[in-house]
Amino acid sequence: MAQVIAQWRLRIDAALERTLPPAGESPQRLHAAMRHAALLGGKRMRPLLVHATGAAFGADMALLDAPALAVELVHAYSLVHDDLPAMDDDALRRGQPTLHVAFDEATAILAGDALQSLAFATLAQAPGSADARIDMLRELALAAGSRGMCGGQALDIEATGAAERFGVDELEDLHSLKTGALLRASVRLGAIAAGVDASARAALDRYADALGLAFQVRDDLLDVEGDSATLGKTAGKDAAQDKATFPALIGIDASRARLESLRAEMTDALAPFGDRVAVLAELGRQAIERVR
Amino acid sequence: MAQVIAQWRLRIDAALERTLPPAGESPQRLHAAMRHAALLGGKRMRPLLVHATGAAFGADMALLDAPALAVELVHAYSLVHDDLPAMDDDALRRGQPTLHVAFDEATAILAGDALQSLAFATLAQAPGSADARIDMLRELALAAGSRGMCGGQALDIEATGAAERFGVDELEDLHSLKTGALLRASVRLGAIAAGVDASARAALDRYADALGLAFQVRDDLLDVEGDSATLGKTAGKDAAQDKATFPALIGIDASRARLESLRAEMTDALAPFGDRVAVLAELGRQAIERVR
Repeated sequence: MAQVIAQWRLRIDAALERTLPPAGESPQRLHAAMRHAALLGGKRMRPLLVHATGAAFGADMALLDAPALAVELVHAYSLVHDDLPAMDDDALRRGQPTLHVAFDEATAILAGDALQSLAFATLAQAPGSADARIDMLRELALAAGSRGMCGGQALDIEATGAAERFGVDELEDLHSLKTGALLRASVRLGAIAAGVDASARAALDRYADALGLAFQVRDDLLDVEGDSATLGKTAGKDAAQDKATFPALIGIDASRARLESLRAEMTDALAPFGDRVAVLAELGRQAIERVR
Repeated sequence: MAQVIAQWRLRIDAALERTLPPAGESPQRLHAAMRHAALLGGKRMRPLLVHATGAAFGADMALLDAPALAVELVHAYSLVHDDLPAMDDDALRRGQPTLHVAFDEATAILAGDALQSLAFATLAQAPGSADARIDMLRELALAAGSRGMCGGQALDIEATGAAERFGVDELEDLHSLKTGALLRASVRLGAIAAGVDASARAALDRYADALGLAFQVRDDLLDVEGDSATLGKTAGKDAAQDKATFPALIGIDASRARLESLRAEMTDALAPFGDRVAVLAELGRQAIERVR
Protein backbone atom coordinates (compact mmCIF):
# COMPACT_ATOMS: atom_id res chain seq x y z
CA MET A 1 0.00 0.00 0.00
CA ALA A 2 2.84 2.40 0.90
CA GLN A 3 4.20 1.64 -2.57
CA VAL A 4 0.93 2.51 -4.32
CA ILE A 5 0.73 5.79 -2.42
CA ALA A 6 4.37 6.60 -3.20
CA GLN A 7 3.74 5.85 -6.88
CA TRP A 8 0.67 8.08 -7.03
CA ARG A 9 2.63 10.84 -5.31
CA LEU A 10 5.29 10.65 -8.02
CA ARG A 11 2.57 10.69 -10.66
CA ILE A 12 1.00 13.79 -9.07
CA ASP A 13 4.35 15.58 -8.84
CA ALA A 14 5.11 14.76 -12.48
CA ALA A 15 1.68 16.02 -13.56
CA LEU A 16 2.16 19.25 -11.58
CA GLU A 17 5.60 19.72 -13.10
CA ARG A 18 4.12 19.29 -16.59
CA THR A 19 1.07 21.49 -16.03
CA LEU A 20 2.64 24.51 -14.34
CA PRO A 21 4.06 26.98 -16.87
CA PRO A 22 7.89 26.78 -17.05
CA ALA A 23 9.77 29.26 -14.84
CA GLY A 24 11.52 30.55 -17.98
CA GLU A 25 8.24 31.61 -19.59
CA SER A 26 7.19 35.28 -19.25
CA PRO A 27 6.13 36.61 -16.77
CA GLN A 28 9.00 34.68 -15.23
CA ARG A 29 8.68 35.92 -11.67
CA LEU A 30 5.00 34.97 -11.56
CA HIS A 31 5.62 31.53 -13.04
CA ALA A 32 8.55 30.87 -10.71
CA ALA A 33 6.30 31.81 -7.79
CA MET A 34 3.50 29.51 -8.94
CA ARG A 35 5.97 26.65 -9.20
CA HIS A 36 7.45 27.42 -5.77
CA ALA A 37 3.96 27.35 -4.26
CA ALA A 38 2.81 24.12 -5.88
CA LEU A 39 5.96 22.01 -6.20
CA LEU A 40 7.84 22.47 -2.93
CA GLY A 41 6.73 19.71 -0.59
CA GLY A 42 3.26 19.00 0.70
CA LYS A 43 1.60 15.72 1.60
CA ARG A 44 -0.52 15.70 -1.58
CA MET A 45 -3.43 14.44 0.53
CA ARG A 46 -6.13 15.92 -1.70
CA PRO A 47 -4.88 14.50 -5.01
CA LEU A 48 -4.20 11.18 -3.25
CA LEU A 49 -7.87 11.14 -2.21
CA VAL A 50 -8.86 11.66 -5.85
CA HIS A 51 -6.64 8.75 -6.95
CA ALA A 52 -7.60 6.47 -4.06
CA THR A 53 -11.34 7.04 -4.56
CA GLY A 54 -11.18 6.77 -8.34
CA ALA A 55 -9.01 3.65 -8.29
CA ALA A 56 -11.20 1.98 -5.64
CA PHE A 57 -14.23 2.26 -7.89
CA GLY A 58 -12.56 1.38 -11.17
CA ALA A 59 -11.88 4.77 -12.81
CA ASP A 60 -9.40 4.89 -15.67
CA MET A 61 -6.13 6.30 -14.24
CA ALA A 62 -5.95 8.71 -17.19
CA LEU A 63 -9.16 10.38 -15.98
CA LEU A 64 -7.77 11.02 -12.51
CA ASP A 65 -4.77 13.21 -13.28
CA ALA A 66 -6.71 16.40 -14.07
CA PRO A 67 -8.99 16.32 -11.01
CA ALA A 68 -6.01 15.39 -8.83
CA LEU A 69 -4.07 18.37 -10.18
CA ALA A 70 -7.04 20.68 -9.84
CA VAL A 71 -7.63 20.01 -6.13
CA GLU A 72 -3.91 20.37 -5.38
CA LEU A 73 -3.71 23.67 -7.28
CA VAL A 74 -6.67 25.05 -5.34
CA HIS A 75 -5.07 23.87 -2.10
CA ALA A 76 -1.71 25.43 -3.05
CA TYR A 77 -3.34 28.76 -3.91
CA SER A 78 -5.25 28.79 -0.62
CA LEU A 79 -2.06 28.27 1.40
CA VAL A 80 -0.34 31.15 -0.41
CA HIS A 81 -3.19 33.54 0.33
CA ASP A 82 -3.75 32.29 3.90
CA ASP A 83 -0.08 32.95 4.68
CA LEU A 84 -0.21 36.61 3.54
CA PRO A 85 0.54 39.32 6.13
CA ALA A 86 -3.09 40.54 6.01
CA MET A 87 -4.32 37.00 6.71
CA ASP A 88 -2.47 34.53 8.99
CA ASP A 89 0.90 36.28 8.47
CA ASP A 90 3.00 33.12 8.36
CA ALA A 91 6.68 33.16 7.40
CA LEU A 92 7.25 29.39 7.33
CA ARG A 93 5.39 26.69 5.41
CA ARG A 94 6.50 23.14 4.65
CA GLY A 95 9.87 24.09 6.15
CA GLN A 96 10.37 26.82 3.53
CA PRO A 97 9.86 30.59 3.53
CA THR A 98 6.25 31.34 2.55
CA LEU A 99 5.69 32.74 -0.92
CA HIS A 100 5.39 36.41 0.00
CA VAL A 101 8.65 36.08 1.95
CA ALA A 102 10.51 34.23 -0.81
CA PHE A 103 9.12 36.57 -3.50
CA ASP A 104 6.96 39.56 -2.55
CA GLU A 105 3.37 40.22 -1.55
CA ALA A 106 2.07 41.32 -4.96
CA THR A 107 3.57 38.27 -6.64
CA ALA A 108 2.11 36.01 -3.94
CA ILE A 109 -1.38 37.44 -4.44
CA LEU A 110 -1.14 37.05 -8.22
CA ALA A 111 0.40 33.58 -8.06
CA GLY A 112 -2.47 32.43 -5.84
CA ASP A 113 -5.00 33.95 -8.23
CA ALA A 114 -3.35 32.31 -11.24
CA LEU A 115 -3.13 28.92 -9.50
CA GLN A 116 -6.87 29.05 -8.92
CA SER A 117 -7.49 29.82 -12.61
CA LEU A 118 -5.10 27.04 -13.61
CA ALA A 119 -7.07 24.53 -11.53
CA PHE A 120 -10.24 25.25 -13.52
CA ALA A 121 -8.39 25.42 -16.85
CA THR A 122 -6.88 22.01 -16.13
CA LEU A 123 -10.27 20.45 -15.42
CA ALA A 124 -11.88 22.13 -18.43
CA GLN A 125 -9.17 20.70 -20.70
CA ALA A 126 -9.20 17.20 -19.18
CA PRO A 127 -10.02 14.04 -21.11
CA GLY A 128 -13.31 12.27 -20.40
CA SER A 129 -16.94 13.14 -21.02
CA ALA A 130 -18.04 16.78 -20.97
CA ASP A 131 -20.76 15.86 -18.46
CA ALA A 132 -18.30 14.39 -15.98
CA ARG A 133 -16.00 17.39 -16.34
CA ILE A 134 -18.88 19.79 -15.75
CA ASP A 135 -19.82 17.84 -12.61
CA MET A 136 -16.24 18.07 -11.39
CA LEU A 137 -15.97 21.78 -12.21
CA ARG A 138 -19.15 22.52 -10.31
CA GLU A 139 -18.06 20.52 -7.24
CA LEU A 140 -14.66 22.17 -7.17
CA ALA A 141 -15.90 25.72 -7.77
CA LEU A 142 -18.53 25.42 -5.05
CA ALA A 143 -16.05 23.84 -2.62
CA ALA A 144 -13.56 26.65 -3.23
CA GLY A 145 -15.96 29.58 -2.87
CA SER A 146 -17.63 31.59 -0.14
CA ARG A 147 -19.88 28.67 0.78
CA GLY A 148 -16.82 26.45 1.07
CA MET A 149 -13.12 27.05 1.61
CA CYS A 150 -13.08 30.88 1.32
CA GLY A 151 -16.04 31.10 3.66
CA GLY A 152 -14.22 28.91 6.16
CA GLN A 153 -11.13 31.09 6.01
CA ALA A 154 -13.31 34.17 6.57
CA LEU A 155 -14.80 32.53 9.69
CA ASP A 156 -11.32 31.52 10.82
CA ILE A 157 -10.16 35.14 10.65
CA GLU A 158 -13.18 36.15 12.73
CA ALA A 159 -12.26 33.40 15.22
CA THR A 160 -8.72 34.70 15.67
CA GLY A 161 -8.48 36.61 18.91
CA ALA A 162 -12.06 35.64 19.73
CA ALA A 163 -11.77 32.07 21.02
CA GLU A 164 -14.18 32.80 23.88
CA ARG A 165 -17.03 33.54 21.45
CA PHE A 166 -16.73 30.13 19.79
CA GLY A 167 -18.51 26.93 20.74
CA VAL A 168 -17.36 23.54 19.53
CA ASP A 169 -20.26 23.27 17.06
CA GLU A 170 -19.28 26.57 15.46
CA LEU A 171 -15.67 25.39 15.32
CA GLU A 172 -16.74 22.20 13.54
CA ASP A 173 -18.80 24.26 11.09
CA LEU A 174 -15.80 26.47 10.42
CA HIS A 175 -13.56 23.51 9.63
CA SER A 176 -16.22 21.75 7.63
CA LEU A 177 -15.86 24.72 5.27
CA LYS A 178 -12.21 25.66 5.62
CA THR A 179 -10.62 22.24 5.13
CA GLY A 180 -13.65 19.95 4.85
CA ALA A 181 -15.11 21.34 1.63
CA LEU A 182 -12.00 20.71 -0.48
CA LEU A 183 -11.35 17.28 1.04
CA ARG A 184 -14.97 16.31 0.32
CA ALA A 185 -14.60 17.66 -3.22
CA SER A 186 -11.42 15.59 -3.68
CA VAL A 187 -13.26 12.39 -2.82
CA ARG A 188 -16.23 13.44 -4.95
CA LEU A 189 -14.08 14.18 -8.01
CA GLY A 190 -12.60 10.68 -7.78
CA ALA A 191 -16.11 9.27 -7.42
CA ILE A 192 -17.36 11.23 -10.45
CA ALA A 193 -14.46 9.95 -12.56
CA ALA A 194 -15.42 6.40 -11.55
CA GLY A 195 -19.16 6.92 -12.10
CA VAL A 196 -19.98 5.95 -8.50
CA ASP A 197 -23.72 5.75 -7.67
CA ALA A 198 -25.55 8.08 -5.27
CA SER A 199 -25.67 5.77 -2.23
CA ALA A 200 -21.96 5.04 -2.42
CA ARG A 201 -21.34 8.77 -2.85
CA ALA A 202 -23.22 9.46 0.39
CA ALA A 203 -21.03 6.97 2.28
CA LEU A 204 -17.92 8.53 0.75
CA ASP A 205 -19.13 11.97 1.85
CA ARG A 206 -19.41 10.65 5.43
CA TYR A 207 -15.86 9.32 5.20
CA ALA A 208 -14.59 12.60 3.77
CA ASP A 209 -16.34 14.69 6.43
CA ALA A 210 -14.87 12.60 9.23
CA LEU A 211 -11.46 12.76 7.57
CA GLY A 212 -11.62 16.54 7.24
CA LEU A 213 -12.52 17.06 10.85
CA ALA A 214 -9.94 14.51 12.03
CA PHE A 215 -7.30 16.30 9.99
CA GLN A 216 -8.14 19.56 11.72
CA VAL A 217 -8.34 18.17 15.26
CA ARG A 218 -4.91 16.62 14.67
CA ASP A 219 -3.67 19.96 13.32
CA ASP A 220 -4.80 21.72 16.48
CA LEU A 221 -3.18 19.05 18.68
CA LEU A 222 0.08 19.30 16.73
CA ASP A 223 0.12 23.06 17.22
CA VAL A 224 0.04 22.43 20.99
CA GLU A 225 2.26 19.34 21.13
CA GLY A 226 4.53 19.57 18.09
CA ASP A 227 7.67 21.59 17.45
CA SER A 228 8.28 23.97 14.55
CA ALA A 229 11.18 21.96 13.09
CA THR A 230 9.10 18.78 12.68
CA LEU A 231 5.96 20.66 11.63
CA GLY A 232 7.74 22.77 9.03
CA LYS A 233 5.66 25.69 10.25
CA THR A 234 5.45 27.81 13.40
CA ALA A 235 4.16 25.78 16.40
CA GLY A 236 2.23 27.32 19.29
CA LYS A 237 0.74 29.96 17.02
CA ASP A 238 -2.91 29.19 17.78
CA ALA A 239 -2.58 29.91 21.52
CA ALA A 240 -0.44 32.98 20.83
CA GLN A 241 -3.22 34.32 18.58
CA ASP A 242 -6.01 33.28 20.99
CA LYS A 243 -7.49 31.18 18.21
CA ALA A 244 -10.49 28.90 18.69
CA THR A 245 -9.11 25.32 18.55
CA PHE A 246 -10.29 21.93 19.78
CA PRO A 247 -7.68 21.74 22.59
CA ALA A 248 -8.62 25.29 23.67
CA LEU A 249 -12.35 24.57 23.68
CA ILE A 250 -12.58 20.98 24.96
CA GLY A 251 -9.05 20.21 26.24
CA ILE A 252 -6.34 17.88 24.97
CA ASP A 253 -7.81 14.60 26.26
CA ALA A 254 -11.26 15.23 24.81
CA SER A 255 -9.64 16.27 21.52
CA ARG A 256 -7.80 12.93 21.43
CA ALA A 257 -11.04 11.10 22.18
CA ARG A 258 -12.76 13.00 19.38
CA LEU A 259 -10.02 11.86 17.02
CA GLU A 260 -10.71 8.25 17.96
CA SER A 261 -14.45 8.64 17.38
CA LEU A 262 -13.71 10.14 13.97
CA ARG A 263 -11.45 7.17 13.21
CA ALA A 264 -14.39 4.87 14.02
CA GLU A 265 -16.68 6.95 11.81
CA MET A 266 -14.34 6.61 8.85
CA THR A 267 -14.06 2.85 9.37
CA ASP A 268 -17.83 2.61 9.56
CA ALA A 269 -18.43 4.68 6.40
CA LEU A 270 -15.91 2.62 4.43
CA ALA A 271 -17.06 -0.79 5.76
CA PRO A 272 -19.54 -1.59 2.93
CA PHE A 273 -16.79 -1.33 0.32
CA GLY A 274 -14.42 -3.94 1.74
CA ASP A 275 -10.79 -4.19 0.70
CA ARG A 276 -10.91 -2.00 -2.33
CA VAL A 277 -10.99 1.14 -0.20
CA ALA A 278 -7.90 0.09 1.78
CA VAL A 279 -5.95 3.13 0.56
CA LEU A 280 -8.72 5.50 1.66
CA ALA A 281 -8.61 3.84 5.10
CA GLU A 282 -4.84 4.25 5.17
CA LEU A 283 -5.07 7.94 4.26
CA GLY A 284 -7.54 8.36 7.12
CA ARG A 285 -5.14 6.65 9.50
CA GLN A 286 -2.31 8.91 8.35
CA ALA A 287 -4.42 12.04 8.89
CA ILE A 288 -5.04 10.95 12.47
CA GLU A 289 -1.55 9.74 13.32
CA ARG A 290 0.59 12.22 11.43
CA VAL A 291 3.29 14.16 13.28
CA ARG A 292 3.38 17.09 10.84
CA MET B 1 -29.60 50.95 -29.42
CA ALA B 2 -29.04 52.86 -26.19
CA GLN B 3 -32.25 51.24 -25.00
CA VAL B 4 -31.05 47.71 -25.77
CA ILE B 5 -27.81 48.38 -23.93
CA ALA B 6 -29.65 49.87 -20.97
CA GLN B 7 -31.96 46.83 -20.87
CA TRP B 8 -29.07 44.38 -20.92
CA ARG B 9 -27.37 46.34 -18.17
CA LEU B 10 -30.46 45.97 -16.00
CA ARG B 11 -30.58 42.28 -16.83
CA ILE B 12 -26.91 41.88 -15.85
CA ASP B 13 -27.40 43.77 -12.59
CA ALA B 14 -30.44 41.64 -11.74
CA ALA B 15 -28.52 38.45 -12.50
CA LEU B 16 -25.59 39.60 -10.33
CA GLU B 17 -28.00 40.49 -7.51
CA ARG B 18 -29.54 36.99 -7.74
CA THR B 19 -26.27 35.09 -8.03
CA LEU B 20 -24.21 36.75 -5.30
CA PRO B 21 -24.92 35.22 -1.88
CA PRO B 22 -27.14 37.48 0.28
CA ALA B 23 -25.27 39.83 2.65
CA GLY B 24 -27.22 38.26 5.53
CA GLU B 25 -25.80 34.79 4.84
CA SER B 26 -22.77 33.67 6.91
CA PRO B 27 -19.97 34.63 6.60
CA GLN B 28 -21.74 37.96 6.40
CA ARG B 29 -18.72 40.22 6.17
CA LEU B 30 -17.34 38.21 3.26
CA HIS B 31 -20.65 38.16 1.42
CA ALA B 32 -21.22 41.87 1.99
CA ALA B 33 -17.75 42.53 0.58
CA MET B 34 -18.39 40.37 -2.50
CA ARG B 35 -21.60 42.29 -3.16
CA HIS B 36 -19.88 45.64 -2.65
CA ALA B 37 -17.22 44.65 -5.18
CA ALA B 38 -19.58 43.35 -7.86
CA LEU B 39 -22.70 45.47 -7.50
CA LEU B 40 -21.47 49.03 -6.96
CA GLY B 41 -21.21 50.69 -10.34
CA GLY B 42 -19.11 49.64 -13.28
CA LYS B 43 -19.73 49.96 -16.99
CA ARG B 44 -20.52 46.23 -17.40
CA MET B 45 -18.56 46.30 -20.64
CA ARG B 46 -17.54 42.64 -20.49
CA PRO B 47 -21.03 41.18 -19.91
CA LEU B 48 -22.40 43.60 -22.52
CA LEU B 49 -19.91 42.13 -25.01
CA VAL B 50 -21.22 38.65 -24.17
CA HIS B 51 -24.81 39.77 -24.76
CA ALA B 52 -24.02 41.82 -27.87
CA THR B 53 -22.02 39.02 -29.50
CA GLY B 54 -24.50 36.31 -28.55
CA ALA B 55 -27.53 38.32 -29.66
CA ALA B 56 -25.85 39.31 -32.95
CA PHE B 57 -25.44 35.67 -33.90
CA GLY B 58 -28.77 34.40 -32.66
CA ALA B 59 -28.00 32.89 -29.25
CA ASP B 60 -30.90 32.23 -26.90
CA MET B 61 -30.87 35.05 -24.28
CA ALA B 62 -31.21 32.44 -21.52
CA LEU B 63 -27.80 31.03 -22.50
CA LEU B 64 -26.07 34.42 -22.16
CA ASP B 65 -26.74 35.25 -18.51
CA ALA B 66 -24.23 32.78 -17.03
CA PRO B 67 -21.29 33.72 -19.29
CA ALA B 68 -22.14 37.42 -18.84
CA LEU B 69 -22.09 36.98 -15.06
CA ALA B 70 -18.91 34.94 -15.16
CA VAL B 71 -16.84 37.52 -17.04
CA GLU B 72 -18.11 40.32 -14.80
CA LEU B 73 -17.30 38.34 -11.64
CA VAL B 74 -13.75 37.70 -12.88
CA HIS B 75 -13.41 41.39 -13.73
CA ALA B 76 -14.74 42.44 -10.31
CA TYR B 77 -12.34 40.10 -8.50
CA SER B 78 -9.38 41.42 -10.53
CA LEU B 79 -10.19 45.03 -9.61
CA VAL B 80 -10.36 44.15 -5.91
CA HIS B 81 -6.96 42.45 -5.97
CA ASP B 82 -5.35 45.07 -8.25
CA ASP B 83 -6.38 47.80 -5.81
CA LEU B 84 -4.73 46.12 -2.79
CA PRO B 85 -1.91 48.01 -1.02
CA ALA B 86 0.65 45.43 -2.18
CA MET B 87 -0.48 45.90 -5.80
CA ASP B 88 -1.63 49.27 -7.21
CA ASP B 89 -2.60 50.62 -3.76
CA ASP B 90 -5.72 52.46 -4.89
CA ALA B 91 -8.17 54.02 -2.43
CA LEU B 92 -10.84 55.06 -4.93
CA ARG B 93 -12.67 53.01 -7.55
CA ARG B 94 -15.89 53.85 -9.37
CA GLY B 95 -16.19 56.87 -7.07
CA GLN B 96 -16.29 54.64 -3.99
CA PRO B 97 -13.68 53.56 -1.44
CA THR B 98 -11.92 50.43 -2.71
CA LEU B 99 -12.81 47.16 -1.01
CA HIS B 100 -9.83 46.94 1.35
CA VAL B 101 -10.58 50.51 2.47
CA ALA B 102 -14.34 49.94 2.93
CA PHE B 103 -13.73 46.57 4.64
CA ASP B 104 -10.21 45.35 5.37
CA GLU B 105 -7.35 43.75 3.48
CA ALA B 106 -7.99 40.14 4.50
CA THR B 107 -11.65 40.41 3.54
CA ALA B 108 -10.71 42.00 0.21
CA ILE B 109 -8.29 39.17 -0.62
CA LEU B 110 -10.90 36.54 0.28
CA ALA B 111 -13.74 38.31 -1.49
CA GLY B 112 -11.65 38.44 -4.67
CA ASP B 113 -10.82 34.75 -4.34
CA ALA B 114 -14.45 33.82 -3.77
CA LEU B 115 -15.64 35.96 -6.70
CA GLN B 116 -13.28 34.05 -8.97
CA SER B 117 -14.66 30.71 -7.71
CA LEU B 118 -18.20 31.99 -8.14
CA ALA B 119 -17.50 32.86 -11.79
CA PHE B 120 -16.58 29.25 -12.53
CA ALA B 121 -19.39 27.83 -10.40
CA THR B 122 -21.87 30.00 -12.30
CA LEU B 123 -20.67 28.74 -15.68
CA ALA B 124 -20.55 25.13 -14.50
CA GLN B 125 -24.18 25.38 -13.36
CA ALA B 126 -25.43 27.20 -16.46
CA PRO B 127 -28.11 25.89 -18.79
CA GLY B 128 -27.08 24.73 -22.27
CA SER B 129 -25.02 21.84 -23.59
CA ALA B 130 -22.17 20.47 -21.49
CA ASP B 131 -19.84 20.86 -24.48
CA ALA B 132 -20.57 24.58 -24.84
CA ARG B 133 -20.12 25.11 -21.11
CA ILE B 134 -16.78 23.29 -21.14
CA ASP B 135 -15.66 25.49 -24.07
CA MET B 136 -16.65 28.59 -22.11
CA LEU B 137 -14.99 27.40 -18.91
CA ARG B 138 -11.75 26.71 -20.77
CA GLU B 139 -11.76 30.12 -22.49
CA LEU B 140 -12.47 31.95 -19.26
CA ALA B 141 -9.97 30.01 -17.12
CA LEU B 142 -7.19 30.50 -19.67
CA ALA B 143 -8.02 34.20 -20.08
CA ALA B 144 -7.94 34.72 -16.30
CA GLY B 145 -4.68 32.91 -15.59
CA SER B 146 -0.94 33.54 -15.81
CA ARG B 147 -1.03 33.43 -19.61
CA GLY B 148 -3.85 35.99 -19.58
CA MET B 149 -5.07 38.58 -17.09
CA CYS B 150 -2.90 37.62 -14.08
CA GLY B 151 0.16 37.51 -16.31
CA GLY B 152 -0.67 40.98 -17.60
CA GLN B 153 -1.01 42.34 -14.08
CA ALA B 154 2.36 40.79 -13.19
CA LEU B 155 3.95 42.55 -16.18
CA ASP B 156 2.18 45.77 -15.21
CA ILE B 157 3.71 45.65 -11.75
CA GLU B 158 7.13 45.13 -13.33
CA ALA B 159 6.42 48.14 -15.57
CA THR B 160 5.66 50.41 -12.61
CA GLY B 161 8.64 52.64 -11.94
CA ALA B 162 10.36 51.22 -15.01
CA ALA B 163 8.78 53.10 -17.91
CA GLU B 164 12.16 53.63 -19.54
CA ARG B 165 12.67 49.87 -19.98
CA PHE B 166 9.41 49.50 -21.94
CA GLY B 167 8.91 49.77 -25.68
CA VAL B 168 5.50 50.25 -27.24
CA ASP B 169 5.40 46.62 -28.47
CA GLU B 170 5.98 45.36 -24.96
CA LEU B 171 3.30 47.72 -23.68
CA GLU B 172 0.82 46.37 -26.22
CA ASP B 173 1.74 42.80 -25.21
CA LEU B 174 1.15 43.70 -21.56
CA HIS B 175 -2.31 45.11 -22.27
CA SER B 176 -3.20 42.29 -24.62
CA LEU B 177 -2.93 40.12 -21.49
CA LYS B 178 -4.05 42.46 -18.72
CA THR B 179 -7.29 43.76 -20.25
CA GLY B 180 -7.29 42.14 -23.69
CA ALA B 181 -7.57 38.51 -22.60
CA LEU B 182 -10.80 38.97 -20.65
CA LEU B 183 -12.39 41.21 -23.31
CA ARG B 184 -11.52 38.61 -25.97
CA ALA B 185 -12.97 35.89 -23.74
CA SER B 186 -16.17 37.92 -23.30
CA VAL B 187 -16.69 38.08 -27.06
CA ARG B 188 -15.74 34.41 -27.41
CA LEU B 189 -18.21 33.28 -24.74
CA GLY B 190 -21.00 35.06 -26.58
CA ALA B 191 -19.83 33.45 -29.81
CA ILE B 192 -19.76 29.98 -28.23
CA ALA B 193 -23.31 30.43 -26.90
CA ALA B 194 -24.41 31.33 -30.45
CA GLY B 195 -22.47 28.48 -32.08
CA VAL B 196 -20.52 30.90 -34.31
CA ASP B 197 -18.22 29.25 -36.90
CA ALA B 198 -14.41 29.47 -36.89
CA SER B 199 -13.99 32.17 -39.54
CA ALA B 200 -16.49 34.47 -37.85
CA ARG B 201 -14.74 33.79 -34.56
CA ALA B 202 -11.43 34.92 -36.06
CA ALA B 203 -13.00 38.22 -37.17
CA LEU B 204 -14.56 38.67 -33.73
CA ASP B 205 -11.15 38.06 -32.15
CA ARG B 206 -9.73 40.87 -34.29
CA TYR B 207 -12.53 43.17 -33.16
CA ALA B 208 -11.98 42.21 -29.52
CA ASP B 209 -8.22 42.72 -29.70
CA ALA B 210 -8.62 46.19 -31.20
CA LEU B 211 -11.27 47.00 -28.61
CA GLY B 212 -9.04 45.87 -25.75
CA LEU B 213 -6.13 47.96 -26.89
CA ALA B 214 -8.34 50.97 -27.62
CA PHE B 215 -9.81 50.70 -24.14
CA GLN B 216 -6.35 50.82 -22.66
CA VAL B 217 -5.01 53.67 -24.81
CA ARG B 218 -8.09 55.65 -23.79
CA ASP B 219 -7.46 54.73 -20.16
CA ASP B 220 -3.92 56.06 -20.36
CA LEU B 221 -5.13 59.28 -22.03
CA LEU B 222 -7.81 59.77 -19.39
CA ASP B 223 -5.21 59.40 -16.66
CA VAL B 224 -3.34 62.34 -18.23
CA GLU B 225 -6.32 64.46 -19.30
CA GLY B 226 -9.15 63.51 -16.94
CA ASP B 227 -9.91 64.55 -13.38
CA SER B 228 -10.47 62.25 -10.42
CA ALA B 229 -14.06 63.35 -9.83
CA THR B 230 -15.21 62.40 -13.35
CA LEU B 231 -13.03 59.28 -13.48
CA GLY B 232 -14.18 57.99 -10.11
CA LYS B 233 -10.56 57.02 -9.47
CA THR B 234 -7.29 58.84 -8.87
CA ALA B 235 -6.10 60.72 -11.99
CA GLY B 236 -2.46 61.42 -12.77
CA LYS B 237 -1.36 58.24 -11.03
CA ASP B 238 0.49 56.74 -13.96
CA ALA B 239 2.96 59.60 -14.28
CA ALA B 240 3.36 59.81 -10.50
CA GLN B 241 4.29 56.10 -10.48
CA ASP B 242 6.51 56.41 -13.59
CA LYS B 243 4.35 53.80 -15.28
CA ALA B 244 4.77 52.78 -18.90
CA THR B 245 1.75 54.24 -20.76
CA PHE B 246 1.00 55.13 -24.37
CA PRO B 247 1.19 58.92 -23.77
CA ALA B 248 4.49 58.44 -21.91
CA LEU B 249 5.99 56.29 -24.67
CA ILE B 250 4.64 57.84 -27.85
CA GLY B 251 3.08 61.14 -26.73
CA ILE B 252 -0.52 62.33 -26.53
CA ASP B 253 -1.02 63.06 -30.25
CA ALA B 254 0.31 59.70 -31.40
CA SER B 255 -1.85 58.00 -28.74
CA ARG B 256 -4.91 59.74 -30.16
CA ALA B 257 -3.91 58.68 -33.68
CA ARG B 258 -3.49 55.10 -32.47
CA LEU B 259 -7.02 55.25 -31.06
CA GLU B 260 -8.35 56.25 -34.48
CA SER B 261 -6.49 53.41 -36.22
CA LEU B 262 -7.97 50.99 -33.70
CA ARG B 263 -11.41 52.41 -34.41
CA ALA B 264 -10.84 51.67 -38.12
CA GLU B 265 -9.66 48.16 -37.27
CA MET B 266 -12.83 47.43 -35.32
CA THR B 267 -15.00 48.75 -38.15
CA ASP B 268 -13.07 46.62 -40.63
CA ALA B 269 -13.33 43.44 -38.52
CA LEU B 270 -17.09 43.90 -38.06
CA ALA B 271 -17.82 44.89 -41.68
CA PRO B 272 -18.69 41.36 -42.95
CA PHE B 273 -21.50 41.03 -40.40
CA GLY B 274 -23.52 44.10 -41.39
CA ASP B 275 -26.15 45.61 -39.15
CA ARG B 276 -26.55 42.79 -36.71
CA VAL B 277 -23.28 43.74 -34.98
CA ALA B 278 -24.37 47.37 -34.50
CA VAL B 279 -24.21 47.03 -30.71
CA LEU B 280 -20.67 45.68 -30.86
CA ALA B 281 -19.73 48.68 -33.00
CA GLU B 282 -21.39 51.00 -30.49
CA LEU B 283 -19.53 49.40 -27.57
CA GLY B 284 -16.31 49.95 -29.51
CA ARG B 285 -17.20 53.60 -30.05
CA GLN B 286 -17.96 54.02 -26.34
CA ALA B 287 -14.60 52.49 -25.34
CA ILE B 288 -12.83 55.05 -27.55
CA GLU B 289 -14.91 58.10 -26.63
CA ARG B 290 -15.59 57.49 -22.96
CA VAL B 291 -14.71 60.18 -20.43
CA ARG B 292 -14.38 57.79 -17.47
